[in-house]
Amino acid sequence: MATIVQKYGGTSVGNPERIKNVARRVLETQRAGNSVVVIVSAMSGVTDGLIKLAREVSEEPVEREMDVLLATGEQTTIALLAMAVTAMGGKAVSCTGAQAGIVTDDVHSKARIHNITPGEVNRMLDDGNIVVVAGFQGITSSGRITTLGRGGSDLTAIALAAAIKADLCQIFTDVDGVYTADPRLVPDARKIPVISYEEMLEMASSGSKVMQSRSVEFANKFGVPFEVRNSMNNNPGTLVTMENSSMESVVIRGVSLEKDQAKITITAIPDQPGNAAQVLKAIGDANLNIDMIIQNTSREGEARISFTLHKSDLKKAQAALGAAAKSISDKVQITAQDGIAKVSAVGIGMRSHSGVAAQMFGALGEAGINIDMISTSEIKIAVIVDEKDQENAVRTVHRAFRLHEAP
Amino acid sequence: MATIVQKYGGTSVGNPERIKNVARRVLETQRAGNSVVVIVSAMSGVTDGLIKLAREVSEEPVEREMDVLLATGEQTTIALLAMAVTAMGGKAVSCTGAQAGIVTDDVHSKARIHNITPGEVNRMLDDGNIVVVAGFQGITSSGRITTLGRGGSDLTAIALAAAIKADLCQIFTDVDGVYTADPRLVPDARKIPVISYEEMLEMASSGSKVMQSRSVEFANKFGVPFEVRNSMNNNPGTLVTMENSSMESVVIRGVSLEKDQAKITITAIPDQPGNAAQVLKAIGDANLNIDMIIQNTSREGEARISFTLHKSDLKKAQAALGAAAKSISDKVQITAQDGIAKVSAVGIGMRSHSGVAAQMFGALGEAGINIDMISTSEIKIAVIVDEKDQENAVRTVHRAFRLHEAP
Repeated sequence: MATIVQKYGGTSVGNPERIKNVARRVLETQRAGNSVVVIVSAMSGVTDGLIKLAREVSEEPVEREMDVLLATGEQTTIALLAMAVTAMGGKAVSCTGAQAGIVTDDVHSKARIHNITPGEVNRMLDDGNIVVVAGFQGITSSGRITTLGRGGSDLTAIALAAAIKADLCQIFTDVDGVYTADPRLVPDARKIPVISYEEMLEMASSGSKVMQSRSVEFANKFGVPFEVRNSMNNNPGTLVTMENSSMESVVIRGVSLEKDQAKITITAIPDQPGNAAQVLKAIGDANLNIDMIIQNTSREGEARISFTLHKSDLKKAQAALGAAAKSISDKVQITAQDGIAKVSAVGIGMRSHSGVAAQMFGALGEAGINIDMISTSEIKIAVIVDEKDQENAVRTVHRAFRLHEAP
Repeated sequence: MATIVQKYGGTSVGNPERIKNVARRVLETQRAGNSVVVIVSAMSGVTDGLIKLAREVSEEPVEREMDVLLATGEQTTIALLAMAVTAMGGKAVSCTGAQAGIVTDDVHSKARIHNITPGEVNRMLDDGNIVVVAGFQGITSSGRITTLGRGGSDLTAIALAAAIKADLCQIFTDVDGVYTADPRLVPDARKIPVISYEEMLEMASSGSKVMQSRSVEFANKFGVPFEVRNSMNNNPGTLVTMENSSMESVVIRGVSLEKDQAKITITAIPDQPGNAAQVLKAIGDANLNIDMIIQNTSREGEARISFTLHKSDLKKAQAALGAAAKSISDKVQITAQDGIAKVSAVGIGMRSHSGVAAQMFGALGEAGINIDMISTSEIKIAVIVDEKDQENAVRTVHRAFRLHEAP
């Protein structure tokens, strides 16, 4: 008998009919001879409704109470799903995050899981129950309700799967799995059957937002294999798991696109130790996330740093940098540009294959697409292109590595 | 510095504006130098919405999960109220029933409070917080969420007031207090400034449903004085407290009406020990509440029992009695009648005043109102009249005891 953790997102439990659909699925899974734990999110729309309500009583709702409020969303779903399973003749019991033993730190609205004491969940499983656990929420050691922030329900599923030593964790969502590229851009993109944690992380950080990076990181850290699949059909999904040697035969696993990027270039920085750090610190202090950072070899004693960021952060970044630059030298210049995009090719196979970057750049050049910046990691090659070329660039790279063909 | 527990019902917190109104009230109470605990219900309409949702996933929702579902209603209100208080510059923190230490038995949907461990509430009060507690809910000793059933938030307020040894408990509702009669029936009815627990109980059991009886019983048992008052104005309300000698000067405190009553009469019961009990047991087994029970002296070896009940229970009662009657004797006859009402005059003063019943019956007779049944307790005289006379009967008794005049 296997122990399976299934997670259903807000769309999958978005109305009573869909909740009944999920109830049928989890019952089938149990009747096939498995112990089943189900993690659910708030019904889609519920969280937004609660946030709206909060704003009507307070312009800036205190985060501790926001967590108490938002936690009702998942609590509603667990009760309804447990009722639906029971109505179909099954045996189910609901657990809030607190009842499931999910203990977090006290950083409200984006708490981190400290530890899980799954005694109650295990006891209920042993009693033959389908255990329905509220995702996204936990409790501090002093008993305050917390929420885990965006993607928190995925994290609950993976962390609980680790804690109860589940055999498999299934993340049900509204897509069939992880694709070689966004099927809306690349019609002949294929679903990836197996992908490594590292590749999944690089895909996620490059715009393929099937899951939040920290859930994948958590799965990687605790070695929890998980499958991303569609709650509306029975198609097999994408298994995300530890890297193994057979995976290396595929050079590029997928291509992802990050739109709406912007670039800031800082020129004429006196090339002395600490100056670059001082510039970047200003960005960090302003709580802005930057992505690709490129510093070329200095010329004539002056350094030049470029980095990319989301265009919505551009104004804030310029303001923060202006102050920092002045404190270094009056000559320092800051230029900004938006209207660019990042296209990434990801695959652990590139470690053992040479010429991958050349092949990618060549294909883009042949297609008449200009490359503005390049950044590489061990398993990723990322290029910045003009946004007018972004879709063509994804299709070109996808085809260059023959990702439309089964490996 | 006094410690005050305030309870606000669903109408009083029915929308964001009203929640802000409550926030202002509790802040004023705190700024007047008091420690304040606030108990709130679910926003009006929320509970009904949740019940509807439950019925869409299950025809007969399992009660344990219904409690988990309904508890989200009060949890939403506590978060919103704590936010609203904070937004106004106050210091507030929310507590679910579990967090407030309200431990109940495991009878879901109508749990009884076992004990309260108010350590956390006291600690938060000591920190200068307005403590906002979810009414209507608790937790079993094994950690399952329970609800206390109808009127449960009043019970939470009174029980918590007892546990923290509050100086006063204020039950805010949508009426100004307890009246000498329903002001919709008796335009010159007056608000009662002080009433004893016992009188309040008799009024409640006679149709004046400002509060559920068990909350009043709990207050009586633990000696918690409480005030019923209106959340929409600043009028003084009705103080419900221990009986004292000054209260006895008022013979009748109020008159109440219970509409939609029905009567069942069982005749020709062989007058042997146990027969009456067998009949009444059938009613109890069917989970029906009966009210006035009258057995006249038997004639010719045959007893005759009448009792009243709500007319919605009449059919069920007839079915249950039919079977029981047959097992006693074929001669037993059951007759049923609806279209009647109960009018009660309540007052602890009648203990020390004679002729009260005669005065009441005389007034009703003069008004041409026929009395069908009579039942009396130490502090109540109740009569059954035809429903066509019910309103006139209330007005007649109210005037006969000069309740329209200040005592």
